Amino acid sequence: MRPEELIRKKRDAGALTREEIFFLIEHYTRDAIPDYQMAAWLMAVFWRGMTPAETADLTEAMMRSGQVLDLSELPGAKVDKHSTGGVGDKTSLVIAPVVAAAGLPVPMISGRGLGHTGGTLDKLEAIPGFNVRLTLPEFRRALAEVGCALIGQTAEIAPADRKLYALRDVTATVESIPLITASILSKKLAEGIDALVLDVKVGSGAFMKDRESATRLARSLQEIGTRMGKRVVALLTNMDQVLGRAVGNALEVEEAVAVLKGEEREDLRALCRQLCAWMLVLGGAAQTLEEGGQRYDELVRSGAAAEKFRQIIARQGGDPRVVDDPRRLPQARERRDFPAPASGYLARMDAERIGRAAMVLGAGRARVEDAIDPAVGLVLHKKVGERMEQGEPLATLYFNHAERLADASARLEGAFRVEPSPPKPTPLVFETLT
Amino acid sequence: MRPEELIRKKRDAGALTREEIFFLIEHYTRDAIPDYQMAAWLMAVFWRGMTPAETADLTEAMMRSGQVLDLSELPGAKVDKHSTGGVGDKTSLVIAPVVAAAGLPVPMISGRGLGHTGGTLDKLEAIPGFNVRLTLPEFRRALAEVGCALIGQTAEIAPADRKLYALRDVTATVESIPLITASILSKKLAEGIDALVLDVKVGSGAFMKDRESATRLARSLQEIGTRMGKRVVALLTNMDQVLGRAVGNALEVEEAVAVLKGEEREDLRALCRQLCAWMLVLGGAAQTLEEGGQRYDELVRSGAAAEKFRQIIARQGGDPRVVDDPRRLPQARERRDFPAPASGYLARMDAERIGRAAMVLGAGRARVEDAIDPAVGLVLHKKVGERMEQGEPLATLYFNHAERLADASARLEGAFRVEPSPPKPTPLVFETLT
Repeated sequence: MRPEELIRKKRDAGALTREEIFFLIEHYTRDAIPDYQMAAWLMAVFWRGMTPAETADLTEAMMRSGQVLDLSELPGAKVDKHSTGGVGDKTSLVIAPVVAAAGLPVPMISGRGLGHTGGTLDKLEAIPGFNVRLTLPEFRRALAEVGCALIGQTAEIAPADRKLYALRDVTATVESIPLITASILSKKLAEGIDALVLDVKVGSGAFMKDRESATRLARSLQEIGTRMGKRVVALLTNMDQVLGRAVGNALEVEEAVAVLKGEEREDLRALCRQLCAWMLVLGGAAQTLEEGGQRYDELVRSGAAAEKFRQIIARQGGDPRVVDDPRRLPQARERRDFPAPASGYLARMDAERIGRAAMVLGAGRARVEDAIDPAVGLVLHKKVGERMEQGEPLATLYFNHAERLADASARLEGAFRVEPSPPKPTPLVFETLT
Repeated sequence: MRPEELIRKKRDAGALTREEIFFLIEHYTRDAIPDYQMAAWLMAVFWRGMTPAETADLTEAMMRSGQVLDLSELPGAKVDKHSTGGVGDKTSLVIAPVVAAAGLPVPMISGRGLGHTGGTLDKLEAIPGFNVRLTLPEFRRALAEVGCALIGQTAEIAPADRKLYALRDVTATVESIPLITASILSKKLAEGIDALVLDVKVGSGAFMKDRESATRLARSLQEIGTRMGKRVVALLTNMDQVLGRAVGNALEVEEAVAVLKGEEREDLRALCRQLCAWMLVLGGAAQTLEEGGQRYDELVRSGAAAEKFRQIIARQGGDPRVVDDPRRLPQARERRDFPAPASGYLARMDAERIGRAAMVLGAGRARVEDAIDPAVGLVLHKKVGERMEQGEPLATLYFNHAERLADASARLEGAFRVEPSPPKPTPLVFETLT
């Protein structure tokens, strides 16, 4: 088998066999196929696409390029959730403790912030002492003891994905449905899970700005995950505005804790509840979505969810007192209100601009090597549909470097549209693919 | 300017600016853009194509990646011919002396055999002592003294093309009209020529097997060459049978010399005459194609063409006596006739199979590092349309290694179709694009 023939086959719209796909991925992982051949193949895949069978084979080959956890010794179905990334998306910090409190193990391997979106690992690291760099044996032990562990991708998990992702990033081959599908699922399925809930975000703050491509991705993820023998549900959710109100790592931990303790936070709480309900159903801890939702309410009301979060934090070396005293989280030295530009109803917001405003304050990275400032970010005082008077605070910026404020404020300038009458409400979940 | 953005632009069917194309080629040539980014870009070009303006810019950028000869100190228009490659194509060995004898300088930089086709350099090296490795200053001097020099590509000529071609070869991005156009023209135009005749071959022995893609390539070559300020004509010629009768390096030199001395060799002589006539017209040494043809006839009849070939050979260190005594060329130790499989008319031949039969005897390379045996090859005794009786010699194979004979004969088995009535004649030149 020669790589150039497999490139040619895909270039000419052929479907690769399972053997051919495993050949490519195995050889590429151990540097036996050079980057330039893989790059040409990736562009051919970008052009020609892949059949579901090819995508499943690619996912499996990438998953098997590293270690695949076997968690069958743990009782209960292992479940996880994955989000394609949005602005203010701190659902993992709520969901993981709730589902673990319900008795289902949650082995969650997460990522860092990417572009304008934050990452679960960065948020967790805002908790003083929290260690996301457990080895796989430590991960396993934490999981067995607490029912949940939250770590970053290790070198043993899907190394093919790490190599491929770095290559796609510099060869303009990122936005391909089969390649995204295989990248996400190869890592998630290596966790040894039985069921997976996918939160595919669409809108101004998501990577997928239009419904059609987001729907195609959601379908692909659901179909390929199912082909690979897992129970998978994909929700297409609204990312046209910031999820919740906080953007920035410590600020988001604080907001997640509030939800975990039962505070009402509009779309954030509603989405956490629905994602949890699905996880409980797929994991067999609830019969129906309604029952799953009730389970969520009980675990929050009883304090079991918050207590589980304290256990998780403590088990991973963090300070569990942040759950009860958010002032123990890093605090920005300064804050500044951003005034409403007009009186009326907030009709739209550009969540990507808002994400980038937080990023320039230090909440995210412009380059991989940049350090994150856990304390900075912003909190919105209005959600879409709410009324405001000109000049009242629309948001508050939290910062440590005054010289970054002008850039952040400029980005916010064009991010809000105010209109005289309230906008038509839009759904939080557009579609659920089961 | 970032390479990934230029890849993305082409991927999304955009047209690159002149500045962007020069950026890519300049940086790639000095290793400032890695192979993997170029490979992705090449596949995107393969997919999306290039506008004529982009193709011309690419050609120029590749040409300017190295030295561009300025031959303006030589009197007369500098002319050359390029063939896309065929089986038995020894026209360069006839054309170069004829046109030089007519007083037009011919600065010919040629290639090696590729796949089933032979290369001019390999044929020239069959002449004892002939040195194709002149430096550019030596090339210039030989050209000034003799009016023609025939050499291989040097490191100074279009280095971008050498790098790109090697990359295309292993990334399934060879068969792209704009990339082929830029590859051919960047090298040819670096020779410092004023006019170029292109022999685009189509048929069983060519790289382009179908009329449509060959016509597209011919049009592209003609259009881009003209855009770059050169007088360019492209002929679409028939490569459905071996050109002439000899395949193999010394055997082809012998046949070329025969034509140069006025022997009738069917399609070979006719094509040489027509290509020369065009070169003479483009170079201003003839007013009309008819006059160019007459000029060819005179130069052959008078012996001026053969004498020019003796001068060229002598100037490049070869033995000029081969022109008068072909037995001074390398001779194979053994020969074997290949019998006609049936009685009737030769209706078709598969020129690629015949080229490969000669290749396995040692006339060509399976891999770049293989050595060539100049003496071996085959000579056909019948051309398409001729009658034969079963068992009479249809071809003679010349070989030095008996163990290769079976493979070569097996390839010839399926290469000829004999039918009871004569086939409809096909034209030698399908189309001339001016």
